[in-house]
Amino acid sequence: MIDLAGAAERLKDRARVTPLLGSAFLDKIAGRRVLVKPECLQHTGSFKFRGAWSAISALPKDTRGVLAYSSGNHAQGIAMAAGLLGLPAVIVMPHDAPALKRANTKALGAEVVTYQRGKESREEIGAALAEERGLALVKPYDDPFVIAGQGSVGLEIAAQARAMGVSRAEVLVPCGGGGLTAGIALALAQEAPQMRVRPVEPEGFDDMTRSLAAREVLSNPTEQGSVCDAILTPQPGNLTFPILKTHAGPGLTISDHEALRAMAQAFLRLKLVAEPGGAVALAAALWRADKLDADTVIAVISGGNCDPALFARALSTL
Amino acid sequence: MIDLAGAAERLKDRARVTPLLGSAFLDKIAGRRVLVKPECLQHTGSFKFRGAWSAISALPKDTRGVLAYSSGNHAQGIAMAAGLLGLPAVIVMPHDAPALKRANTKALGAEVVTYQRGKESREEIGAALAEERGLALVKPYDDPFVIAGQGSVGLEIAAQARAMGVSRAEVLVPCGGGGLTAGIALALAQEAPQMRVRPVEPEGFDDMTRSLAAREVLSNPTEQGSVCDAILTPQPGNLTFPILKTHAGPGLTISDHEALRAMAQAFLRLKLVAEPGGAVALAAALWRADKLDADTVIAVISGGNCDPALFARALSTL
Repeated sequence: MIDLAGAAERLKDRARVTPLLGSAFLDKIAGRRVLVKPECLQHTGSFKFRGAWSAISALPKDTRGVLAYSSGNHAQGIAMAAGLLGLPAVIVMPHDAPALKRANTKALGAEVVTYQRGKESREEIGAALAEERGLALVKPYDDPFVIAGQGSVGLEIAAQARAMGVSRAEVLVPCGGGGLTAGIALALAQEAPQMRVRPVEPEGFDDMTRSLAAREVLSNPTEQGSVCDAILTPQPGNLTFPILKTHAGPGLTISDHEALRAMAQAFLRLKLVAEPGGAVALAAALWRADKLDADTVIAVISGGNCDPALFARALSTL
Repeated sequence: MIDLAGAAERLKDRARVTPLLGSAFLDKIAGRRVLVKPECLQHTGSFKFRGAWSAISALPKDTRGVLAYSSGNHAQGIAMAAGLLGLPAVIVMPHDAPALKRANTKALGAEVVTYQRGKESREEIGAALAEERGLALVKPYDDPFVIAGQGSVGLEIAAQARAMGVSRAEVLVPCGGGGLTAGIALALAQEAPQMRVRPVEPEGFDDMTRSLAAREVLSNPTEQGSVCDAILTPQPGNLTFPILKTHAGPGLTISDHEALRAMAQAFLRLKLVAEPGGAVALAAALWRADKLDADTVIAVISGGNCDPALFARALSTL
């Protein structure tokens, strides 16, 4: 049972209500109305704070601390939420996580333990540490409280779009393990049934897209090799996949170059900093017109934690 | 008479209500709580849409079109507001206006006429064109409807800060001719009397700071030579200076390099794109601690229309 209302209640006045933005310049590129939900403006620079707060604030009172594994955005969300709740946090991060994400996670007060992405299992390392120190594991997406927290993005989209007179739309969401996409899907099914969620992934890491098409869980051959670090996960989650099988439309894929070009458009037209994995839905909104079905497309920018050199590279695509 | 309430009424559901953001990382640099009002997220990427809409929507019904002179942000605000109201717009822009601002102004439907900054008078060229074509001139700051429109930023700051439990603060505002600063000053005098406005300018272009200290209008020796193009004006306005003489605290100045470093902090910590002139107040909030007086400093980021190469230069200061 995913308790969207309970999570929304715990998140009230804690998470930022991010706006729903648009630009006539983007509409022109896309050939339809484009609305953008900038979760890069959320605390810690990504939507992950929502799920982290939702999960940690629901833990038993005698919890001694929390543990999470993450390439960086879940890490920061957990570090900040744990800090606000007075709990220690240990984060298992891949060796190639962006420097900014690693530094921020430490600065937010968490202890960082590094593992070799592709060689070691973060799940095993995390489970061992949690056991050893008596910490509560907060999974990045396969956790009902996390999914419920991310769902608050969908509740906001439904209410904000309604206030703008929009009831029908394709809602494009950057998809890693599917926590954000599943949360939004549940919220829209409830609050805006004429909106349809579409997961967006980088080419070569389209496990959710292929799994939805095959109606069964399929894996990615590798977890490395895209600039979209935030959404490189091995396969759809056990909780998230059934939700998306029921509620999501077909997945969409975009290239790394298109992700960088979408970052440049977010810079130019919205004055927002998106990271590559956070920009994939905007890329699909702008350059996959033939695969979209409604007059309005809503794209979630899921995060903006981007190292400066990579951002400069994105700007050089203009 | 500056009618703040009338402008706020006309702007309702037209201008975006921009959020009031913060970051523990910025608090740490500043040594106090920092709140940021990101008007870079306003329509056209700067606060100028507010004043433009306020002024044009108050023009007589038989107005044939509007004319404005501007280095680029007022231009875009006027172009968009005029377009929404179905009026043609002519903009007189300096030859060295940033390429992005010139392109956007044209893309928003305005006719652009160029003049040589420092050699020709934009006021004279504008007045002649307005006379010849029967256009209504909308001045960038010395217009009561424009000042009233910009004041809506101050009304939002007062309400949003109150909701966060903040009643006392220094409110730092990027200052060119003083329209935004004066509008905010009037709004705070009315809604948040324990907050004090402080204009912020680039070194060498500190006409308002020196004028406030001298209690009389003083000019800048030149209008060229700073990256902060948006706020390089010859001298305080005839309407804005008396308002600020009554309501503002002493002005603050920062270097071009500090403006670029503040842009980098807005990128890193807030995921926002600021232009140099838009980032001067944030720079002062971060690096003029000894000249500030309250536990909380609120910095307005007035715009984000920055050419990509200049933004990359700002990132290289990290």
